[in-house]
Amino acid sequence: MNVVEQLQEVRKWTKRRDEKNRRMSLVKSWLRGSILPTDHIVNALEALISSGDKVALEGNNQKQATFLSGALSKLDTHKVNNLHMLISSISRPEHLDIFEKGIARKLDFAYAGPQSLRIAQMIEDRLIEVGVIHTYLELYGRMFIDLIPNIALVAADKADLAGNLYTGPNTEETPTLVEATAFSNGIVIVQVNEIVDELPRVDIPASWVDVIVVADKPYQLEALFTRDPRQITEMQILMAMMAIRGVYERHQVMSLNHGIGFNTAAIELLLPTYGASLGLRGKICKHWALNPHPTLIPAIESGWVESIHCFGGEKGMEAYIAARPDIFFTGKDGSLRSNRAYCQMAGMYGVDLFIGSTLQMDEEGNSSTVTSGRLAGFGGAPNMGSDPHGRRHSSPAWLDMVSNEGTIVRGKKLVVQMFETFQKGDQPTFVESLDAVAVGQDANLPIAPVMIYGDDVTHVITEEGIAYLYKAQNLEERKLALAAVAGVTPLGLNHILSLNEQLRKDGLIAFPEDLGIRRTDAKRSLLAAKSVEELVEWSDGLYKPPGKFRSW
Amino acid sequence: MNVVEQLQEVRKWTKRRDEKNRRMSLVKSWLRGSILPTDHIVNALEALISSGDKVALEGNNQKQATFLSGALSKLDTHKVNNLHMLISSISRPEHLDIFEKGIARKLDFAYAGPQSLRIAQMIEDRLIEVGVIHTYLELYGRMFIDLIPNIALVAADKADLAGNLYTGPNTEETPTLVEATAFSNGIVIVQVNEIVDELPRVDIPASWVDVIVVADKPYQLEALFTRDPRQITEMQILMAMMAIRGVYERHQVMSLNHGIGFNTAAIELLLPTYGASLGLRGKICKHWALNPHPTLIPAIESGWVESIHCFGGEKGMEAYIAARPDIFFTGKDGSLRSNRAYCQMAGMYGVDLFIGSTLQMDEEGNSSTVTSGRLAGFGGAPNMGSDPHGRRHSSPAWLDMVSNEGTIVRGKKLVVQMFETFQKGDQPTFVESLDAVAVGQDANLPIAPVMIYGDDVTHVITEEGIAYLYKAQNLEERKLALAAVAGVTPLGLNHILSLNEQLRKDGLIAFPEDLGIRRTDAKRSLLAAKSVEELVEWSDGLYKPPGKFRSW
Repeated sequence: MNVVEQLQEVRKWTKRRDEKNRRMSLVKSWLRGSILPTDHIVNALEALISSGDKVALEGNNQKQATFLSGALSKLDTHKVNNLHMLISSISRPEHLDIFEKGIARKLDFAYAGPQSLRIAQMIEDRLIEVGVIHTYLELYGRMFIDLIPNIALVAADKADLAGNLYTGPNTEETPTLVEATAFSNGIVIVQVNEIVDELPRVDIPASWVDVIVVADKPYQLEALFTRDPRQITEMQILMAMMAIRGVYERHQVMSLNHGIGFNTAAIELLLPTYGASLGLRGKICKHWALNPHPTLIPAIESGWVESIHCFGGEKGMEAYIAARPDIFFTGKDGSLRSNRAYCQMAGMYGVDLFIGSTLQMDEEGNSSTVTSGRLAGFGGAPNMGSDPHGRRHSSPAWLDMVSNEGTIVRGKKLVVQMFETFQKGDQPTFVESLDAVAVGQDANLPIAPVMIYGDDVTHVITEEGIAYLYKAQNLEERKLALAAVAGVTPLGLNHILSLNEQLRKDGLIAFPEDLGIRRTDAKRSLLAAKSVEELVEWSDGLYKPPGKFRSW
Repeated sequence: MNVVEQLQEVRKWTKRRDEKNRRMSLVKSWLRGSILPTDHIVNALEALISSGDKVALEGNNQKQATFLSGALSKLDTHKVNNLHMLISSISRPEHLDIFEKGIARKLDFAYAGPQSLRIAQMIEDRLIEVGVIHTYLELYGRMFIDLIPNIALVAADKADLAGNLYTGPNTEETPTLVEATAFSNGIVIVQVNEIVDELPRVDIPASWVDVIVVADKPYQLEALFTRDPRQITEMQILMAMMAIRGVYERHQVMSLNHGIGFNTAAIELLLPTYGASLGLRGKICKHWALNPHPTLIPAIESGWVESIHCFGGEKGMEAYIAARPDIFFTGKDGSLRSNRAYCQMAGMYGVDLFIGSTLQMDEEGNSSTVTSGRLAGFGGAPNMGSDPHGRRHSSPAWLDMVSNEGTIVRGKKLVVQMFETFQKGDQPTFVESLDAVAVGQDANLPIAPVMIYGDDVTHVITEEGIAYLYKAQNLEERKLALAAVAGVTPLGLNHILSLNEQLRKDGLIAFPEDLGIRRTDAKRSLLAAKSVEELVEWSDGLYKPPGKFRSW
């Protein structure tokens, strides 16, 4: 026997497949095809999951595998413990309960908005061992590399008897989690709302799926991307006018992603009014990587928008989307197909601009939404809010960011931060040191959890004006431009006002008057819709807002 | 009628769907289910494609939709012309013939290796209007944003009578092109090698597909990732030893992507010998984003490799992969599922290191494989060979690249360039100005087509030593470190040798002796396999190399 033969003798190459077959044989008698009776779920999970497994549990921003996460939290810790959870968005209490109970031990995640306070405390108390905190794309990427799931627990709308799945508009991350698991001999377990004879369309083929279970009630779905226009202030309208005039028009921004705040909702609602008055329809903002924001309805109806690709769906927008197939990605059945991984990829690599808001920014332009005691994670913002150095295709906006001379240059993605100089409660947004630094230290993170780094930011918009950071030749100039729009925050008060004339001349800053904007014009009457009710009107009754947004 | 009603009156929202239905009705009588008779393909394409359409034609590195691209080149230009082609890899003569004939006019592409000379000439002659040159991920991303296909022409192995598709190991970009087209009311046309009663597995569901046609012969598949160990030189072995010692071991590189050259093949073949002698098994190189390189077989068989996710397949590796499901991503049927988009995403975001080679590098570390008169495009290298600024998760290797101090820092992806100081024909690799600069000007590109920018490169390895560029505090230090390993090229000859002692002390460069490597140890006898025949032996006969690699 030579060395090669000896090595092959000892090594087995089908451990994952054999183990999968072993576990599946334990539940075989309960299955009809791949369908498991609802009341067998806890027993089945105890048979199919082994201690120490890597378990990908679907937790999106919106769609939650609530039935499966609930069942997981009921497992007998003598049978199943020390799981390594992969959860993109920690949204449900039971996502953390399983750590308190000892069912799970290690956690890789991307976002923990609703649970950010509790998760920070549990990490400090060593109830959770954090792998690392990712962005969505990184976590998905590593599921194909070194965080390969043994188990996927996901949610779909419907299954047929053959085991094919229909996810409906909130396709989101389901296909990605399933692909990573199914093709590595992991076990794919799906909760569905119902089993039907014929699916509207197939989103995931039966041959990728192992176990299907009808949930006791439909999966949770959150309307996270709905902003009521009533709450948009005139300060936000002023900033939105500056964004349209001083960024979108100036750089011919054709494709973009918006954050989910009221600031960007204001921009969406100004396109058909202020934007139209500037003659910009068809010249900016034609292509979007965006969840179906209801506040974009007036711009769509007014012919501004050519296409929207979505990370996920949005409650209430189903009928409107189905009636606008030229704009939205929809299947043969007419309903949306979203895709979180592809939309993040497109939002990072395929668009001119990202614009979002933040809670804190330091004097170098680093920013974070992490505030004291809360560990919210990153979500997808850093994917979009960074300059992708691998980008090689150009567009007018991207080329506008070329700031150095020479034969070897490159453009930049436009990364815009837009916020008021003070947050509610009179906390200055510009701070000496980000809270993220202390939070990172408390949670023993290797580096501070910065959401967007200053060297990636090209523009900062406050109610004072715009800082054109991409024009700064060095860190000093970047700091000066920021201080010039920092208002009466400590950073702004220390700024030497006499420098502003030169900064304006150099194009490093612009005030509203430099952009032809009168502060007194920033009125709520400019909004194309001033309430959710008016959004419904614009949609011809197709948009059906969830109850909490109905005030009429 | 109010303004909203007026706008809605004039706007139609189902143009794409209506147009698709109109076109499909023209071919309906020829279809049985979705299956079109082979000899009807030209007529069918003339009915289904309209002048000016955006047409995504599957051209991977490996798998080519040859039957469909051949049919496309036979269209009557009076009926179909001025198409806007989206082709990730220009590999076939007919990919360019259609431009000469006037069937197509505009081109967005990512790579044009085999056709790089002809494409450069055709652009200069204005036979092709180039949209822009992308990397793969950018082109895929934009297919969901502003380059949404009207038509997809793709290749699969098999279809069933219901219209489901099995792509086999070379899944590659097919699902991505189909998703972008199917969910935007485009028309998806698939060539298959055969129609069967039952598929081994479903890669793409029938509800995403419109027309299936059995090709006159199987699609073309190229073995592009096979390197014959016979051709590996001792110079390459020396550099490979430096890479293992001075980069992989030093930074604990656990997950990585290799380029396709002989340099990296040498590393793969040294892991089970030189790497083992350093006690590194299990400590480096466990997880890979990589095509199934045959030269990785000895490392797999020796227990170095835990997982490999693939962009595509490789001819001859099918049976070996099917027998190693713990390592490769395989379906229930046992065959590989590759995925170009996900693997690029993982290779960019999810791994510690990219290492590749280049033909030219300038004194600042910018590099390109574009040489005079050839416009090869970018492919996927810039995705992998750049620092992804959106990355937020850390690993020991990534943290090792933190070079500045302070509370706000971040790591870097390891981007390694490895090449000999002279190319064949005694052309120095270090040049004063990249040929890419002139080629870009000739082709009227907005900026020079640089493959990897100097500021993204962390390490350069030549036969002289390693330049640790991530340690350079400024451009001057970066230039000095590069010159120190530039040998007797003009750049190297101008370097002041007396500086080297300080550069070594500062850790900016290392010579083989600094790494404990004797140049005389770099022998071919170190290779775990010295020929393709020995790779076959390592694989226990499972690897079945294509004829051109069989010399025994």
